[in-house]
Amino acid sequence: MRSRIELLSGWFNGVQAQMVSGTEPRAARALVECVPNFSEGTRLEVMDAIQSAAADVAGARVLDRHADAVHNRMVLTIAGTPGPVAEAVFRAVARGAALIDLDTHRGVHPRIGATDVVPFVPLGATGMDVCIELAVRMAMRIAAELDIPVYLYGEAARSTARRRLPDLRKGEYERLKAELGTDPSLAPDFGPARVGPAGATAVGARRPLVAYNVTLATSNLGLARTIARDIRESNGGLPAVQARGFATADPNVVQVSMNLLDTRRTSMSLVFERIREAAAQRGVRVLQSELVGLAPAEAVVDVARQSLQFGRLTANSLLEAHLLEQALE
Amino acid sequence: MRSRIELLSGWFNGVQAQMVSGTEPRAARALVECVPNFSEGTRLEVMDAIQSAAADVAGARVLDRHADAVHNRMVLTIAGTPGPVAEAVFRAVARGAALIDLDTHRGVHPRIGATDVVPFVPLGATGMDVCIELAVRMAMRIAAELDIPVYLYGEAARSTARRRLPDLRKGEYERLKAELGTDPSLAPDFGPARVGPAGATAVGARRPLVAYNVTLATSNLGLARTIARDIRESNGGLPAVQARGFATADPNVVQVSMNLLDTRRTSMSLVFERIREAAAQRGVRVLQSELVGLAPAEAVVDVARQSLQFGRLTANSLLEAHLLEQALE
Repeated sequence: MRSRIELLSGWFNGVQAQMVSGTEPRAARALVECVPNFSEGTRLEVMDAIQSAAADVAGARVLDRHADAVHNRMVLTIAGTPGPVAEAVFRAVARGAALIDLDTHRGVHPRIGATDVVPFVPLGATGMDVCIELAVRMAMRIAAELDIPVYLYGEAARSTARRRLPDLRKGEYERLKAELGTDPSLAPDFGPARVGPAGATAVGARRPLVAYNVTLATSNLGLARTIARDIRESNGGLPAVQARGFATADPNVVQVSMNLLDTRRTSMSLVFERIREAAAQRGVRVLQSELVGLAPAEAVVDVARQSLQFGRLTANSLLEAHLLEQALE
Repeated sequence: MRSRIELLSGWFNGVQAQMVSGTEPRAARALVECVPNFSEGTRLEVMDAIQSAAADVAGARVLDRHADAVHNRMVLTIAGTPGPVAEAVFRAVARGAALIDLDTHRGVHPRIGATDVVPFVPLGATGMDVCIELAVRMAMRIAAELDIPVYLYGEAARSTARRRLPDLRKGEYERLKAELGTDPSLAPDFGPARVGPAGATAVGARRPLVAYNVTLATSNLGLARTIARDIRESNGGLPAVQARGFATADPNVVQVSMNLLDTRRTSMSLVFERIREAAAQRGVRVLQSELVGLAPAEAVVDVARQSLQFGRLTANSLLEAHLLEQALE
């Protein structure tokens, strides 16, 4: 059922869109985000040093830092115009390579290097091609200046076998250390066919994703792993969902940790509901949801849309979204 | 129960906040929003003309237009720096006064003038004092240049009796036309003690509000009115909630129409749940939620926080919020 009010609203949107596009054309300003993951989540002085290295580049900004001692991992969110973002990220990667030793690194999250993964993400109207080019240049620079083997992944991958991070990470740093020189299938896209203590790095390009965790009030790690296996796409679960079960620092809490690669295909609401139901069947309750880093407004607004049955609610319903558009002109 | 991960997250926020505040001081750029309401929701050429009048001021931007034929009312959302926003709004008010005749205007929403109400709202770190001053200047200009009686309301009100719009609107335009010249309690703050066909206008300042409607699948207008009466603050209901029951263009749908004056005190989630329960008790189901105009990100994020049990989720969890902060520096 659609009321006349809804029809009018839609109609007016058309008018407004038309008016906006009728003004003078605007130069599109390329904006990108980069979310490098570092294999250090416990030593504060090391995390601070890596973050500081990225902080002094005009045109790029460290928007968020998220660390987890059990994963022994830190994620920075850096955004701005392409050149400055790449410069900030490279400085952080170089600092990480100098300060992190994979031979002594332990954590529950799989990893191949001091800087484990460097994804470039297009923001706003920026094209994926911009991020693929950034990834290739970054890969070449890391290989040339830091002597680190680099794999291109995601949209920047040069073979299907290297598109998915879980495939690239099989066996982790330890396997690369043992076999990189002898197994041709492990040959990097750039850099030497051997690893030092900084390991290897995956550099790529992808759409914005939501790193989303749900914690469960149980000590049963097997349950988190079972639920993760059931919901992830690679096991026939929900589209565009990667999921793993993890322990946490609290022995009475386990975590289903996810990457939602496209929340238009599978929303946070749906994932939460599936996990809640699966846990409830075993008499376990959900403790809470958690974002790792930042989320695109669209993904969060979509949760509100579903839970309060909004006929229409998008990131454009937010005052701040319009201010941002205005400010970036 | 707080896990170590949560504690770390909080701690890092402290570090990040400190880093940000440690950079050079920034000039705060005053930003305001104005949400004028016009008594025209059917004639497209009149609505277009009013919107166009506001569109050509550099430094101000018409972000949204929402109209409703049954209310016979249009709401523009205009944002930018204070002077330009005031200029854009004044032009729209002048156009509305020339094109709208209250003697022939009918609609279910109470109103006193062609431009019924002009609220100024501080955005970001802008102070309420900026908006009170804008309101007083706007009131004086409307009175002087358009010969329209103006009442100051909200934070700009000069007496308690004029703080609330519902009090100002009692008896509407028709009462002002009959009694403005003779009833001293109706004397305007600025302008003549008589109304022409453009009626009178309330000009004020307020915190950001969320104009939020919930539609019910019933022809029973009495039910919408009963629910509105039960939930509104003035009848002892929910804090910071104004509510009315309305008919819609669809005879099988009625609407509970609300202003949420402070979603930190009463959230959209709570209001929705109360309405859903009250309707269900009479066997009526909620059709959908609807925003009128735009909402502050905080109000929408809070819905997602509650429904997915996020331990922490604010407007600062959105990538776009950080980009906006960066863009406005």
